[in-house]
Amino acid sequence: MDLLIEKIKTDGKLLPGNILKVGSFLNHMIDSDLMAKIGDEIARLYEGTGVTKVLTIEASGIAVALAAGMSMHVPMIFAKKHATSNISGDIYTAIVHSYTHGTDYHVAVEADLLNKDDTVLIVDDFLANGQAIKGLVKIVEMSGARLAGAAVCIEKGFQKGGDELRSMGIRVESLARIKSMSDTEIIFY
Amino acid sequence: MDLLIEKIKTDGKLLPGNILKVGSFLNHMIDSDLMAKIGDEIARLYEGTGVTKVLTIEASGIAVALAAGMSMHVPMIFAKKHATSNISGDIYTAIVHSYTHGTDYHVAVEADLLNKDDTVLIVDDFLANGQAIKGLVKIVEMSGARLAGAAVCIEKGFQKGGDELRSMGIRVESLARIKSMSDTEIIFY
Repeated sequence: MDLLIEKIKTDGKLLPGNILKVGSFLNHMIDSDLMAKIGDEIARLYEGTGVTKVLTIEASGIAVALAAGMSMHVPMIFAKKHATSNISGDIYTAIVHSYTHGTDYHVAVEADLLNKDDTVLIVDDFLANGQAIKGLVKIVEMSGARLAGAAVCIEKGFQKGGDELRSMGIRVESLARIKSMSDTEIIFY
Repeated sequence: MDLLIEKIKTDGKLLPGNILKVGSFLNHMIDSDLMAKIGDEIARLYEGTGVTKVLTIEASGIAVALAAGMSMHVPMIFAKKHATSNISGDIYTAIVHSYTHGTDYHVAVEADLLNKDDTVLIVDDFLANGQAIKGLVKIVEMSGARLAGAAVCIEKGFQKGGDELRSMGIRVESLARIKSMSDTEIIFY
């Protein structure tokens, strides 16, 4: 998606340690018009696949998933990272390892929100090691729903997550796929 | 907003302890078409007030704030609850007390995202004790921006937050304002 790639080139910030900061338009402040177009593009890519629900993880996936859900006119679910007093009853849960924070955490979805009649599209802002998406794939499997695939805004193509998911037979669409990055330069596929 | 009130009446679940669960359409699974209409209604209420940015707190405010930002064609910012490796540089921060969880937490916004030329609309899913919104008001004050007001989907009008904010001279718009609720019944203003 050229518009997103151009935005990353002009407004993204490279920090040491392969960190790409996109907080001025994608995951802290969000460019609403750009996000609407991202939603439209995800809807276009998965047109005709019968998606009934979009699934993501709080917090930075919510905006992308809502934009996709709006374009597809289907509900969006965000998995919660912590059990709270607002989640109850039977839940599907999976453990996710965060390389960013060096910890494991649980993701949870109330069981009555997903079932075998659903076709699910997993959406997130970033794909790097793929741990978050693998956790969501487990939740989809638990529910008995069909998985249409995954869509992410930015894939760090030099990390293993995307290849691992594709080798599992999962369709993965990345709107901007990074081949390599340094402290000064970013190269897309 | 009649559409939201009807949805709460049909799909909301009342639990002991004044808990209204709306996780099937507002803050766990989200009805994308309803959320688009909520965004349009917030935009209509604040039309002509010169809003340049919508501000909320992760996680359950993000969808509402994005929908409003899309309708108003302005960026949306979500304050982060925890400092992470993805937030850096100068930040505005405030302490928020959570009555739901019985703890205090910090909310933070990178300082370069808000400044004195901005007019900010604060958006959230719920307004009860008003602690989260007061934290955001402090962040707006720190930035020197003008505050247009606040917009929430559901106000628990029998709790003090809304009245306190209004007595501070802040415009507060609630799309559904609850007068009272019990374990079996919910009454709107």
